[in-house]
Amino acid sequence: MPLLHDDRLFPADPATRSIARQLYASVRELPILSPHGHTQAAWFAKNQAFPDPAKLFIQPDHYVHRMLYSQGVSLDALEIDVENISDPRKVWRIFAEHYYLFRGTPTRLWLDFAFQELFGLENRLTARTADLYFDTISSKLQTPEFLPRSLFERFHIEVLATTDSPLDSLADHIAIRESGWSGRVLPTFRPDSVVDPEFAGFAENIAKLGEQTDEDTSTWQGYLAALRQERERFRSLGCTATDHGHPTANTANLSSGASAALFAKVSTGRASLEEEELFRAQMLTEMARMSLDDGLVMQIHPGSVRNHNLELFRKFGRDMGADIPAPTNYVEALRPLLDLFGNETDLTIILFTLDESTYSRELAPLAGHYPCLRLGPPWWFNDSPEGMMRFRESVIETAGFYNTVGFNDDTRAFLSIPARHDVARRVDCSFLARLVVEHRLNEDEAFEIAQDLTSNLARRAYKL
Amino acid sequence: MPLLHDDRLFPADPATRSIARQLYASVRELPILSPHGHTQAAWFAKNQAFPDPAKLFIQPDHYVHRMLYSQGVSLDALEIDVENISDPRKVWRIFAEHYYLFRGTPTRLWLDFAFQELFGLENRLTARTADLYFDTISSKLQTPEFLPRSLFERFHIEVLATTDSPLDSLADHIAIRESGWSGRVLPTFRPDSVVDPEFAGFAENIAKLGEQTDEDTSTWQGYLAALRQERERFRSLGCTATDHGHPTANTANLSSGASAALFAKVSTGRASLEEEELFRAQMLTEMARMSLDDGLVMQIHPGSVRNHNLELFRKFGRDMGADIPAPTNYVEALRPLLDLFGNETDLTIILFTLDESTYSRELAPLAGHYPCLRLGPPWWFNDSPEGMMRFRESVIETAGFYNTVGFNDDTRAFLSIPARHDVARRVDCSFLARLVVEHRLNEDEAFEIAQDLTSNLARRAYKL
Amino acid sequence: MPLLHDDRLFPADPATRSIARQLYASVRELPILSPHGHTQAAWFAKNQAFPDPAKLFIQPDHYVHRMLYSQGVSLDALEIDVENISDPRKVWRIFAEHYYLFRGTPTRLWLDFAFQELFGLENRLTARTADLYFDTISSKLQTPEFLPRSLFERFHIEVLATTDSPLDSLADHIAIRESGWSGRVLPTFRPDSVVDPEFAGFAENIAKLGEQTDEDTSTWQGYLAALRQERERFRSLGCTATDHGHPTANTANLSSGASAALFAKVSTGRASLEEEELFRAQMLTEMARMSLDDGLVMQIHPGSVRNHNLELFRKFGRDMGADIPAPTNYVEALRPLLDLFGNETDLTIILFTLDESTYSRELAPLAGHYPCLRLGPPWWFNDSPEGMMRFRESVIETAGFYNTVGFNDDTRAFLSIPARHDVARRVDCSFLARLVVEHRLNEDEAFEIAQDLTSNLARRAYKL
Repeated sequence: MPLLHDDRLFPADPATRSIARQLYASVRELPILSPHGHTQAAWFAKNQAFPDPAKLFIQPDHYVHRMLYSQGVSLDALEIDVENISDPRKVWRIFAEHYYLFRGTPTRLWLDFAFQELFGLENRLTARTADLYFDTISSKLQTPEFLPRSLFERFHIEVLATTDSPLDSLADHIAIRESGWSGRVLPTFRPDSVVDPEFAGFAENIAKLGEQTDEDTSTWQGYLAALRQERERFRSLGCTATDHGHPTANTANLSSGASAALFAKVSTGRASLEEEELFRAQMLTEMARMSLDDGLVMQIHPGSVRNHNLELFRKFGRDMGADIPAPTNYVEALRPLLDLFGNETDLTIILFTLDESTYSRELAPLAGHYPCLRLGPPWWFNDSPEGMMRFRESVIETAGFYNTVGFNDDTRAFLSIPARHDVARRVDCSFLARLVVEHRLNEDEAFEIAQDLTSNLARRAYKL
Repeated sequence: MPLLHDDRLFPADPATRSIARQLYASVRELPILSPHGHTQAAWFAKNQAFPDPAKLFIQPDHYVHRMLYSQGVSLDALEIDVENISDPRKVWRIFAEHYYLFRGTPTRLWLDFAFQELFGLENRLTARTADLYFDTISSKLQTPEFLPRSLFERFHIEVLATTDSPLDSLADHIAIRESGWSGRVLPTFRPDSVVDPEFAGFAENIAKLGEQTDEDTSTWQGYLAALRQERERFRSLGCTATDHGHPTANTANLSSGASAALFAKVSTGRASLEEEELFRAQMLTEMARMSLDDGLVMQIHPGSVRNHNLELFRKFGRDMGADIPAPTNYVEALRPLLDLFGNETDLTIILFTLDESTYSRELAPLAGHYPCLRLGPPWWFNDSPEGMMRFRESVIETAGFYNTVGFNDDTRAFLSIPARHDVARRVDCSFLARLVVEHRLNEDEAFEIAQDLTSNLARRAYKL
Repeated sequence: MPLLHDDRLFPADPATRSIARQLYASVRELPILSPHGHTQAAWFAKNQAFPDPAKLFIQPDHYVHRMLYSQGVSLDALEIDVENISDPRKVWRIFAEHYYLFRGTPTRLWLDFAFQELFGLENRLTARTADLYFDTISSKLQTPEFLPRSLFERFHIEVLATTDSPLDSLADHIAIRESGWSGRVLPTFRPDSVVDPEFAGFAENIAKLGEQTDEDTSTWQGYLAALRQERERFRSLGCTATDHGHPTANTANLSSGASAALFAKVSTGRASLEEEELFRAQMLTEMARMSLDDGLVMQIHPGSVRNHNLELFRKFGRDMGADIPAPTNYVEALRPLLDLFGNETDLTIILFTLDESTYSRELAPLAGHYPCLRLGPPWWFNDSPEGMMRFRESVIETAGFYNTVGFNDDTRAFLSIPARHDVARRVDCSFLARLVVEHRLNEDEAFEIAQDLTSNLARRAYKL
């Protein structure tokens, strides 16, 4: 029995399933737009083979190792922070033995998709099949068909955005452009390291920003000018969007003088926690102001308590699966920014959340009113069949389809990209099929919306 | 293909759909009880023709214009605040071009219902059909069958409550009564303008209240006496309920002296924001106390941040689609009032929410215990097929059906009333059908409950 | 028509229902593991007949009397606090007349199960059948088959945990052990009365704890030693778990000196409300530390505002159906404890909630990461078909099945135990059937998980 069934994720009811199938058939082969994610431009710049299955599937994927860790597997045993994994087969076997833990999770859907569609594996991953998997994947990874650029083309990716610091040289992005390869890989401007005073090395980062841009970043105006310059540099390499991963959605509207005074404090390490939060809040407003000028789309990703596990953070650093969502407010938090720019039709701000209680209470009502606001797809833990369905059911009735922006795969795991888009398309078609079969939407409209959700909304919102 | 399918909103599963159909058939023709809404008594007092399609369908309906606005249509282009729309056909065409935005929303269901059932239109509203719609609706509106009273009767409305300020003369209500027309239109006592210190013109309103009642409203006792007198005036015109649109559900239990001192401050504009909130809190308790005396049912509608869009508020005023829900607490907020009156079996307080996270956490447990509490239907953004279903699924298991109060259409859009009640009946019957088919409820009970949800619960809770 | 249908609670779709049926058939007859509940050890120690239907079904079951109370039935009429009910038939008739209030609630499912399966009643309880029910139940209760031990065996209970204070002599548990009866009834260590400074008689309780253990509980070290000793006493009688019913999930990590100073204040009644909360927080951390030593599993049940109804509490005391959930935070609240012990693989902390908004936002992400954390089943108001389904849909995709712990019946109503486990098994099988029919899980895996959810997860988590 293959790992994947052609009707997977479609509702059981035969009439609904039949419509879902037809809708899905109409979007299945459409190219992938990936306007938000965390793959590495270096892969496509260098186009080197991925080293081994453990390095590819386990080490970078915190969805994978957080589940193993929760059940008592040590991160050391997974060689999670090791540049060259000493015994990748051993790591792979640990993973295989624990693969049953992923039952009912989206990770299982994504991995099975890659195993079958890319590597032709059709027997479930278990301790018994661990070596077969390891050997099959290892040998295929060494073939030209599995080089990053080949996979990019095979995945039918029309555009892929990475996430990049203003301090990044973007050398890999430049190399891709200069290589003559036709793949479209774009940077995204993610300034956390230079706008968040709690970011490690904030003061040095500001100084480095000054050197890079030849601006005096010890002053508020010089700092803003440097940021504007960096946004321009990103734009010249195809960037269309910024991304902001703040702990809250707070925004502020300080006077220029108050902002300058606050900057003087935070940039010299003399600010309180409250002042640091206020600075981040003001910077969201500044970024919106710059977006009005340069046209970059803003993405706000608030509400994650980063590095919740102190011991793990000390030992292994960031992104170890220990970021935990917290209650997030939007209605009061966004007010200062919206008071200034909420009615601008030339500005696009895409809101994300990890707090599903805000879907119907705050986000859909906000996006269903303010011209500048759009809603990003269900994020992170909610990027799952049930999570996607709850998003549609909670958001569309108030915000409509056209205040949403299609799908983001948001992944570090390159091989999961087609699987993730496939899941999103199937769930969207299932939702639409239900509306059709319940006579809440006509079939011709459902086909149009399926196209919109797959392509048009992302293209428009992200200016792709 | 007509706009409406006879099986709309019923679940796809054939066995469930068949039961839903039977249940719905048993309540489809029952008269409409509308105990909470925002239509205008003047329509029925004067019985004049509605002027044109734009004035009827677009201008008063913030569900409609908020969606258009969110997608960049200016409110000026819609002539939203214009007494006599200069070019209603042009406004209508803008609406028609953007009608696709409402796909998947309840507004679409309500409008299609009115278009087909009232105006006989069967081709979808688009740019192409805009003029046909405009002409058809315009001409029908001039016929006697489309005068407000004729529609009232055609809609099979048994009773319709409006929402009215204590400062209102209720002249239209009196005129209706004196006209000899049999339609039952009742006022609802909504005292926000004289109990909320943040309401525009609060001090003048208090003074006006004093003039109206010949009470000295510069004193706490005189103020309370004036309110009691006004409630009596409303009651004499058939009013059975009060309604309270506070930002929070806070209640208070101050001593008479403390209340008097607080009133002295708020009525003379010397109160802080906290004191203004405390005054509103105390006034909910005072209103409950008066309800115990005069039998008026209390409705509490908390949790909406009014006029969130500052620019729009300055330009166009209230009710422009920019009210956004906020997290709402009930458990601590209602405690002072419940400590006093929670165990009264002669008092009915109907709670509403825009914060769905309170359904299973706070509202159902509260209503499933306190004799004075009942739960209002899903409100505003949640008055939608998915929203209604979530309400039933989250509330009934703890509070039961009999601590709920049936449906409110809560609308300013008169023509949407039959559509809204139809949606509610269909969703309720779908929910009941699932309980029956899953053998959680017997069929005879489901038929009884369908009648209760449509008629008996509202009649009882609102004393109609 | 019997009260129970064999397909109850299974989804309507025929393909899904067929799989659900098969899954359920494989777990239907498995023995009951009840690791958390509130039955009385005395029933099994003394093995006396239950006195009458009112005493058995109404008086101890706050799910029952809270609903009656919410609809105006007085607790006096139910003789709710009377040791020997004067007229049980009269009480029963009141209940029967109001039985329709339970339509759509889990209480109805549980009661109908007991009525039919245990007492052979097949006509619905109404005013008309009240006496038949009363007589049938009354007479059966006097037969040997209805003695507590017989029912225990008939229910196929493998293990049943009670909930007990450290101040309890556990005489009934000892008596059960010494009686030679094979039924396995275990105590659970619930120290609220000696760790919560707001608990009635806290100071006396601490003193009594000292007497019992011969430790000087006027000192912090003596107090801790006494608690350790009591945990050991419980363990010697088979106890495997502790339970903590705090108002919040707050934990603390004070120094030993600060803890001692705080203890000196709370134990002498000189602490502020904030200090009392801090003490409870510190005690959760101390309990976790002790669990690391003695292996007892920790259960945290936060977020219930106890005795919300002041008048009722004054008149009738605790557990009168007036405990109301409140918003509950876990992410920041648990941090101090998790900083210390979060990465321990030898510690098990089972988290519960009454705030469903935390399922996907906080609890599943926490349990899907920290090795010591597991998620308890949906609790109290959410222990219902819809509540269980929401739990599975919101939690499994992030935490997986294997970070959950199976079912708890959590009941005071002994006769509802088989009914509650039956509901849980049916809902779990329905959820699994949907995953199978949507090709998100293979059928062989679903059968394995059904066994895990019914037996293995509880056995493992609670060390049974």
